[in-house]
Amino acid sequence: MDFRTIFSAVGALTAGLGLAMLLPAAADFLAGNADWLVFASSSAITLFLGGGLWLAARGGEARLTLRQAFLMTVSIWIVLTAFGALPLYLSDLGLSMTDALFESMSGITTTGATVLTALDTSPPGILLWRGLLQWLGGLGVVVMAIAVLPMLRVGGMQMFRAEAFETPDKILPAAAQIATAMTVIYSLLTLACALAYWMAGMPAFDAVVHAFSTVATGGFSTRDASLGAFEQGAIHYIAVVFMILGALPFVLYIGVLQGSVVQLVRDSQVRLFLYLIGLATLIIVFVQLSGDVAEGELAVRQGLFSVVSVMTGSGFGMADFSQWGPLAVSLFFVIMFIGGCTGSTSCGIKIFRFQVLARDLYQHVRQIVFPSMVYVKRYNGRPLPDSVSISVQSFVFVYFASFLILAVLLSLSGLAPLDALGTAATTISNVGPGLSRELGPAGSFAELPDVAKWLMTVGMLVGRLEVMMILVLLTPRFWRA
Amino acid sequence: MDFRTIFSAVGALTAGLGLAMLLPAAADFLAGNADWLVFASSSAITLFLGGGLWLAARGGEARLTLRQAFLMTVSIWIVLTAFGALPLYLSDLGLSMTDALFESMSGITTTGATVLTALDTSPPGILLWRGLLQWLGGLGVVVMAIAVLPMLRVGGMQMFRAEAFETPDKILPAAAQIATAMTVIYSLLTLACALAYWMAGMPAFDAVVHAFSTVATGGFSTRDASLGAFEQGAIHYIAVVFMILGALPFVLYIGVLQGSVVQLVRDSQVRLFLYLIGLATLIIVFVQLSGDVAEGELAVRQGLFSVVSVMTGSGFGMADFSQWGPLAVSLFFVIMFIGGCTGSTSCGIKIFRFQVLARDLYQHVRQIVFPSMVYVKRYNGRPLPDSVSISVQSFVFVYFASFLILAVLLSLSGLAPLDALGTAATTISNVGPGLSRELGPAGSFAELPDVAKWLMTVGMLVGRLEVMMILVLLTPRFWRA
Repeated sequence: MDFRTIFSAVGALTAGLGLAMLLPAAADFLAGNADWLVFASSSAITLFLGGGLWLAARGGEARLTLRQAFLMTVSIWIVLTAFGALPLYLSDLGLSMTDALFESMSGITTTGATVLTALDTSPPGILLWRGLLQWLGGLGVVVMAIAVLPMLRVGGMQMFRAEAFETPDKILPAAAQIATAMTVIYSLLTLACALAYWMAGMPAFDAVVHAFSTVATGGFSTRDASLGAFEQGAIHYIAVVFMILGALPFVLYIGVLQGSVVQLVRDSQVRLFLYLIGLATLIIVFVQLSGDVAEGELAVRQGLFSVVSVMTGSGFGMADFSQWGPLAVSLFFVIMFIGGCTGSTSCGIKIFRFQVLARDLYQHVRQIVFPSMVYVKRYNGRPLPDSVSISVQSFVFVYFASFLILAVLLSLSGLAPLDALGTAATTISNVGPGLSRELGPAGSFAELPDVAKWLMTVGMLVGRLEVMMILVLLTPRFWRA
Repeated sequence: MDFRTIFSAVGALTAGLGLAMLLPAAADFLAGNADWLVFASSSAITLFLGGGLWLAARGGEARLTLRQAFLMTVSIWIVLTAFGALPLYLSDLGLSMTDALFESMSGITTTGATVLTALDTSPPGILLWRGLLQWLGGLGVVVMAIAVLPMLRVGGMQMFRAEAFETPDKILPAAAQIATAMTVIYSLLTLACALAYWMAGMPAFDAVVHAFSTVATGGFSTRDASLGAFEQGAIHYIAVVFMILGALPFVLYIGVLQGSVVQLVRDSQVRLFLYLIGLATLIIVFVQLSGDVAEGELAVRQGLFSVVSVMTGSGFGMADFSQWGPLAVSLFFVIMFIGGCTGSTSCGIKIFRFQVLARDLYQHVRQIVFPSMVYVKRYNGRPLPDSVSISVQSFVFVYFASFLILAVLLSLSGLAPLDALGTAATTISNVGPGLSRELGPAGSFAELPDVAKWLMTVGMLVGRLEVMMILVLLTPRFWRA
């Protein structure tokens, strides 16, 4: 296998990450915080190593084989996580290597689980860097979902294959083109979000950082109480709107930019997603009212915010839903797995896979009763081939198996059984907070044993790379040929 | 739809159940227990109603449509459960309707969960009746798995379709023939088991009842401490052997009767089943040794017994494995779902479905990396069509969905989250005991709220009928045409 193409892509992106570190360096410098030196030197190291790799490996073939594409995608996430952890490790916070890597992985995978406990008093550089990691990670996820996964035919994503990607030769240029378009859309969304937060009364710095992590459906905040630290209801509704926008299929925004909203609202995935949010919110509002947790507008706001935050995989906290009783906890546990639409920054199994599963099941049950009937499955008006069904079903199967294995390992590492289940779910679905008081939306993962943090770090990567990517790399055949 | 064929089959089997009630009547009469009258009168009622239905509905077509077959199978299980509960409800035990139906369903589905708490002092009639319910249920399961499910193409069972069942006309006569052969094999196994128990030192009556529930992989015992009440190690090993024999594919015993054991030991399902038992036992023995729970031969015996009891879905108790720590509890939770081989009395997802899933996943991952490779899936030497894969994957998906829904409902009915999970798993997989001290192998479900008992009663039926059967009946189309 020719590794040059892989090295040069990894190198270029690493250098880009190094450049991004200059932003927190500037923020810390302006705030008079000594940590600016940490970011500046981390930037230098990252730029130097990344740029060097890029230069050294330049001139590889532009053609990308399937196996190279797999290896490149996984390498990028791992290498960027390592370099993203560098300033966190070197900073004044005194983080261990484990904690720095955990936080960086949680950022870049847009999970939003944190091991930091004193965000309110943290220097702006660190806070900005966490937001940036999520923002860049979110962009990476969108580009990967649109340009890479369909080609790799992972988890049924071949359904979303664009014609531009039919031949391996065109992958890199087409990916670059997609990346540009997505970066524009993503930046516009982020700008709008930051402005909205700011106009609703959030300080400018917090507005920017929260805009980064909201559009990325990431969940990192500048406050220990997350968005619950802000009293303005408008801020919570703004967060809801932009978390949802971050969880819709980004390709459809191209239509919106061209002046047509029809495609977006007619998309069956978008509709089911919004419908599920509505349904879950209704139940959670009912739970709050009947349990005297909150009433009136607050109950609606807390319900909507928490449902959207968990289902999109953001993980922002506004209220501690882990204390709302068994129905609420069960429901949040279930919707953790659902996730948003495909081709968005959100995580989890994703809406379209449930649609495929439901269509398959419906057809299957019909065929059991009426074996002679011929029934063509369709998705969004196009026929749904059996290969996609098998792909989706394998994905869901492997997804739950990973969840189960992670839960067992976490429980062996010392977590109480329920904590292990909630943490495994939140990790593999890249949501962020767990489902108990200590590890939930009001808590942090700082107190977990190191083994558990490592398990979560790996679990976040596995979840973000849609499990199958990792599985492919683990097969001996992948390396043999 | 012509209901006569259905009514006559249900009527005939109900009458048969009425006849079976004469056995506990005789046992109670011989023991001088007044309950013999309860069994005698229940027998009269059941015989009268069942026989009447049979006579009234006689003369229906011998031909059975697919829809009739579905409705007949589900009706049989529900009606027999109701009549099986009759003597329990009328007896001296003072059981509520809920408890009587729970116990009857647990018996006839060979689950083995109990709401009785004073088995040691219960009259022989009740104990014998519970054993008989499991024995008859086990026989019913084997016949259903061999003669009915393959034709209904439920959950991938079409793989095991015999040529005799290709045309609907031949179903009833062929089912009768299969039923006869299986009854002979099943009775021989039961006889051997009872003799072995008795020779190992168990009193004759206990030996017979335990033989009934062991071969049926049911789990009802004559003692509150289950098989833990007996000190003889030989008894536990005998139970292990016959639980395993009850969980092997019964069709292969036909080969054994004809003098050839090769087919049995060469079967890939049997091999994987035994291998998994060995692996799980090793882990559990290790857990006991490292946790100072037990040592030497006792650790091996407790480990082997508990693993076989849970994995075959028997649910006999020898030691309270819920107290062996998180690794043990996690492992027992997982193996609850596995079950035994198809076409046996055991429950759960069954080994062959995991084999199909694994083959599909293997092929899928290979095709991701090498899209142009053609790879033919095989199972036991025969090609494995995609229709079976989809069938199996739908089954597993619906199975876990039922488990999850049941767990949420149980948790809403008042069970602690972990109890709800363990109870849902043990119910849907028809294992018997849960995973906590109160509901585990050393406890009983007597103290649960009535709602939870009803949920479990329905859950046991859903699990036993392989979920899909119920789902088919719930589709509007089933009733429309």
